[in-house]
Amino acid sequence: MEAARLHEYTEDMTSGLSIDEVAEPEVAGPDDVIVAVEGAGWCQTDNHIIEGMWEQYVPQPLPMTLGHENAGTVVETGSEVELVSEGDPVICHPVQTCGTCRPCRLGETMYCENDAFNGLTTDGGFAEYLHTSERSVIPLPSGVEPIDIAPHADAGITAYHAAKKAVSELNPGDHAVVIGVGGLGHIGLQCLNAMSAARITAVDVKPSALELAQRYGADHVVNPTDADVPAELEGITDGTGAAQVLDFVGEDVTTAYAPDITAAGGDHHIIGYGGHIHEPAQALVNGEFSFVGNIVGRYAELQELVALVEQGDVDLHTSRYDLDEVNDVAEMLEHGEIDGRAVIVP
Amino acid sequence: MEAARLHEYTEDMTSGLSIDEVAEPEVAGPDDVIVAVEGAGWCQTDNHIIEGMWEQYVPQPLPMTLGHENAGTVVETGSEVELVSEGDPVICHPVQTCGTCRPCRLGETMYCENDAFNGLTTDGGFAEYLHTSERSVIPLPSGVEPIDIAPHADAGITAYHAAKKAVSELNPGDHAVVIGVGGLGHIGLQCLNAMSAARITAVDVKPSALELAQRYGADHVVNPTDADVPAELEGITDGTGAAQVLDFVGEDVTTAYAPDITAAGGDHHIIGYGGHIHEPAQALVNGEFSFVGNIVGRYAELQELVALVEQGDVDLHTSRYDLDEVNDVAEMLEHGEIDGRAVIVP
Amino acid sequence: MEAARLHEYTEDMTSGLSIDEVAEPEVAGPDDVIVAVEGAGWCQTDNHIIEGMWEQYVPQPLPMTLGHENAGTVVETGSEVELVSEGDPVICHPVQTCGTCRPCRLGETMYCENDAFNGLTTDGGFAEYLHTSERSVIPLPSGVEPIDIAPHADAGITAYHAAKKAVSELNPGDHAVVIGVGGLGHIGLQCLNAMSAARITAVDVKPSALELAQRYGADHVVNPTDADVPAELEGITDGTGAAQVLDFVGEDVTTAYAPDITAAGGDHHIIGYGGHIHEPAQALVNGEFSFVGNIVGRYAELQELVALVEQGDVDLHTSRYDLDEVNDVAEMLEHGEIDGRAVIVP
Amino acid sequence: MEAARLHEYTEDMTSGLSIDEVAEPEVAGPDDVIVAVEGAGWCQTDNHIIEGMWEQYVPQPLPMTLGHENAGTVVETGSEVELVSEGDPVICHPVQTCGTCRPCRLGETMYCENDAFNGLTTDGGFAEYLHTSERSVIPLPSGVEPIDIAPHADAGITAYHAAKKAVSELNPGDHAVVIGVGGLGHIGLQCLNAMSAARITAVDVKPSALELAQRYGADHVVNPTDADVPAELEGITDGTGAAQVLDFVGEDVTTAYAPDITAAGGDHHIIGYGGHIHEPAQALVNGEFSFVGNIVGRYAELQELVALVEQGDVDLHTSRYDLDEVNDVAEMLEHGEIDGRAVIVP
Repeated sequence: MEAARLHEYTEDMTSGLSIDEVAEPEVAGPDDVIVAVEGAGWCQTDNHIIEGMWEQYVPQPLPMTLGHENAGTVVETGSEVELVSEGDPVICHPVQTCGTCRPCRLGETMYCENDAFNGLTTDGGFAEYLHTSERSVIPLPSGVEPIDIAPHADAGITAYHAAKKAVSELNPGDHAVVIGVGGLGHIGLQCLNAMSAARITAVDVKPSALELAQRYGADHVVNPTDADVPAELEGITDGTGAAQVLDFVGEDVTTAYAPDITAAGGDHHIIGYGGHIHEPAQALVNGEFSFVGNIVGRYAELQELVALVEQGDVDLHTSRYDLDEVNDVAEMLEHGEIDGRAVIVP
Repeated sequence: MEAARLHEYTEDMTSGLSIDEVAEPEVAGPDDVIVAVEGAGWCQTDNHIIEGMWEQYVPQPLPMTLGHENAGTVVETGSEVELVSEGDPVICHPVQTCGTCRPCRLGETMYCENDAFNGLTTDGGFAEYLHTSERSVIPLPSGVEPIDIAPHADAGITAYHAAKKAVSELNPGDHAVVIGVGGLGHIGLQCLNAMSAARITAVDVKPSALELAQRYGADHVVNPTDADVPAELEGITDGTGAAQVLDFVGEDVTTAYAPDITAAGGDHHIIGYGGHIHEPAQALVNGEFSFVGNIVGRYAELQELVALVEQGDVDLHTSRYDLDEVNDVAEMLEHGEIDGRAVIVP
Repeated sequence: MEAARLHEYTEDMTSGLSIDEVAEPEVAGPDDVIVAVEGAGWCQTDNHIIEGMWEQYVPQPLPMTLGHENAGTVVETGSEVELVSEGDPVICHPVQTCGTCRPCRLGETMYCENDAFNGLTTDGGFAEYLHTSERSVIPLPSGVEPIDIAPHADAGITAYHAAKKAVSELNPGDHAVVIGVGGLGHIGLQCLNAMSAARITAVDVKPSALELAQRYGADHVVNPTDADVPAELEGITDGTGAAQVLDFVGEDVTTAYAPDITAAGGDHHIIGYGGHIHEPAQALVNGEFSFVGNIVGRYAELQELVALVEQGDVDLHTSRYDLDEVNDVAEMLEHGEIDGRAVIVP
Repeated sequence: MEAARLHEYTEDMTSGLSIDEVAEPEVAGPDDVIVAVEGAGWCQTDNHIIEGMWEQYVPQPLPMTLGHENAGTVVETGSEVELVSEGDPVICHPVQTCGTCRPCRLGETMYCENDAFNGLTTDGGFAEYLHTSERSVIPLPSGVEPIDIAPHADAGITAYHAAKKAVSELNPGDHAVVIGVGGLGHIGLQCLNAMSAARITAVDVKPSALELAQRYGADHVVNPTDADVPAELEGITDGTGAAQVLDFVGEDVTTAYAPDITAAGGDHHIIGYGGHIHEPAQALVNGEFSFVGNIVGRYAELQELVALVEQGDVDLHTSRYDLDEVNDVAEMLEHGEIDGRAVIVP
């Protein structure tokens, strides 16, 4: 089968991946599941992987097929698999977990001590078939198509995961801020809206993103290119600051907003990355705010997000590309030219 | 009466405060309480105030009497005061709050929108008498002396506040780390011990501090001057990291431990300050850890700490000084020469 | 002024209260607030008070003016009041609290150790003027009229309080049940909808109530007069049961649903009352469900509810009556003939 | 091998089980684990099973080997088992779970939709060998003997589970009550002590149980045979009531304490069973207390309890019996004649 694979790290997105002919994956263990990929979302993290930004954090055997936002149809299952069978449409959580380590036993599947991450530490879904396991697939409700939901496997649950943490701290009348209304941010905004009664301010440099934010229920929008973000939020929140800030950008300039826009006791959630936090410890003491790290959501959260999608609470803007267009997609994303989320259709 | 007052910011601790003759405070409003100060703890923050480190964060009308860790005996009360009366021994929460703003209504008294902070934004307790209010005093149980408990009014509740947040996330078998076993750290360690069954590792550069930590129940001690802290904790925690880290130092070198010693989903609590956080956003994403700001504990937490003291769960090491020794104390603290907590006895 | 007062307990609603001429309340203490009542909701609890059902729970000096759901305009304030001034429109939390006891300090104002409850333990708002305090009034945002919001002072926050507890346990895909879509239930339903993405089933014996429920966003409705509630919920929830059940009825028949309709680990919230719980302890062990008591919401929750109303998230159906119609209202409510919430306009 | 089996329900404990010769269990699936039982605790629930009290709640194919508190040594494992291998000492959580249903994915293993419960719905450990699975065994730390820890597999984690829920609501200065200091209660008391700084009152009709409670750290003891429990607790708690009550008895008389001894907002935990709750809904509304159901603790909680045992925080009083003494044990327990926990040694 054909697969889009990374052979070596590069800053040049025009030739990051190559289309290789590789063997189709097969069921090897009793819990294995093979999925015919129908949609595989392209993520900013794919660009980061190609650039080598994850090499110091996780083991990455190259060459490796990228693609961690996968959905499709089950074509083969191991002897012990009961959750799905051949022909079932599924969305694939990107992380394959052991189910027996303590984090797995706590439901904290993202902290699994024996995990494999599709497209990050093992082969992913930019290919005709994906090798995964029973513990990583979720059957889709009728009416939900794999190709439409694929990006939720990572972009979706990461946004959902952070939004859910924020929601648990948001009372009616409180303010939330979404920084960056892109692939993840527009999902996070919808999740906040569906799950809380907080007032939402969206911050983005692109006017089109702010228009999208308003359609998805933002009460206020701020464009840093023509307004002072802390001053605007001072006014919007009547001086109290925002109880929860979801930073889907994670650049130096956005993390630096924290002491000025976060309410006492509030959280600045780090979801996007690329930049740094540089902050005096005294600022965190004086304002009692936190920088909260956020990883991909856990398996059970993907179940919850599928429920939101089924109910019509979360919408996804996607555009489709062929497998041999992966490098074009990477290059376009690098220049902010992707409209909504790009989905590779192998 | 005599009061130790700050007239201008200075780096020179030998002449930070001057002993002035000032008018005794009087009851002006129906909720006012006047306390004859019997003990007033000297805090690292007093040094920081003298240096001008708080000028940019809060309004500070100079000259101002410092002293925010006060306890003593009530000598006069306003017409509406019912909680205490003349002769009652009390500990004084440093923050006077309005009781009607939303944070006060939520019990979040440290976020009061109309607060006055003794020794930080209004006159404090390095004087014979302190002006405070009914909402800021806590009657002492019999057997607890003002002079012995005074430092708990700030050092104690700050350590307790952070420890309580940590405890809510600590299960038996989890690991906690206390960085800095000084004035606050030795209280935080005892709080962790009394309120959780976690395993505790103490980190300090002073051997005497580590001995104290062991007496107060630390399971492991690490001295950074002769051991690699991340490597030691890797071994102690069997590779999982510490679920909760209480950083009572807050220097660049201690905040930099976070990505290496904090467990997935864990917190690095910032309590001490002076240094900075410098961390790539990606580190917080990859490890899903947080930098959690911590301010002084709220009024209700001081009630809880008084209960711990009454039960004998938290011990306090103090040494006593006269009012005219305040600058000596500041200078000694600057050089790490104070044994336990210094208490000024006006 | 005229006031509708209870002189002795009676089962006869047609003559429960009498319209007396009484002295107007005056400011006595520095925190007092006098409100000209513009709307005072009539509550099922008023009927219960007339019947003497609260005599064994709280002190009730008779004669007493009833009315605990009040809103109006401030006409006089004590010397220390800063939150409101003459002419401000306000909603009045029914409970006047001390602000200094430990529950008040925790924000748990409903547990105040020195409280007075309008229309339950002290004079209420079925009168031209109400005596209350600064800690019990909330200024209304512009555009919100006292007469329209009055019933939220008790019916609203009680429903909100229970809904908020439920919401903290509800994930997308989970099921919630609202039993009784009357004065409180129709508010609780809207709160669930605004603050969660759970699927909601409404249960009521009145078809009009179920129609109302559907307009307010119920996903399913069940009428016990023609369907078996446990069997219906077995189907609706696919066998898992409802994670959260809000019982606004509280009769023997509704509390008895708990073991059959509540999911493992779920809660059956008791909000309505009148009946009993009769359940083997083993049922609670086997299903690990809880019967959760719910009292009136606290002051800060009324602030949150006002925010929901201001945003248009919670709608209130009311009908208006003159002060001298109070007994007619009581009688009609007894027979289920009140459409929406009755508001007395003194 | 020999196994103590239930053939039919009976009230006569002297002949409840019969010692049968049955086939040894064998590995059938890839996740199976066979354990040579070294200790199997006898539980009050075993008596209840013999009486038929669980028939209406769970499927029970008879004849069935009882015994749900098992520990021993692994003798055989399935092909996919990695957590343990032959020769490892283990404690066996009584519930075998699927690992793929949503409750399992949330860590809520007690709500597994495909579970088997040793000694309740499938064969248990009153036999030489036990058939279980990788997801149900926990390797023991060195120094912890199977025979000493066996009863923690059910009595221990049930007490721990309830205590952990209580601890999350207990602040220093708050009061907790333990009703019934027997097999479960004496563990719950130690857990409260290790994990909180609350003040503990133990209630039991046996003077020896109250002496045990004091050795394990109870601050107060009350014997209902010679004191009025609500009056005593009124005094002990200074009128506020107990924030958390752990009822290890669950008889009508103990559940009836709730409205009188539970603090506003507090919980009466139902752990023991046999009796009923009979309470007016209004009592739960007025006092805002809850009756909280408690089932056996989940797998991860057994890991936490093992950590407590390893640290020496929880002690267990046991007495040992041969397999052919099971009916004597049942009879003695029925008459309150078992000292500590009986452990069957097959």
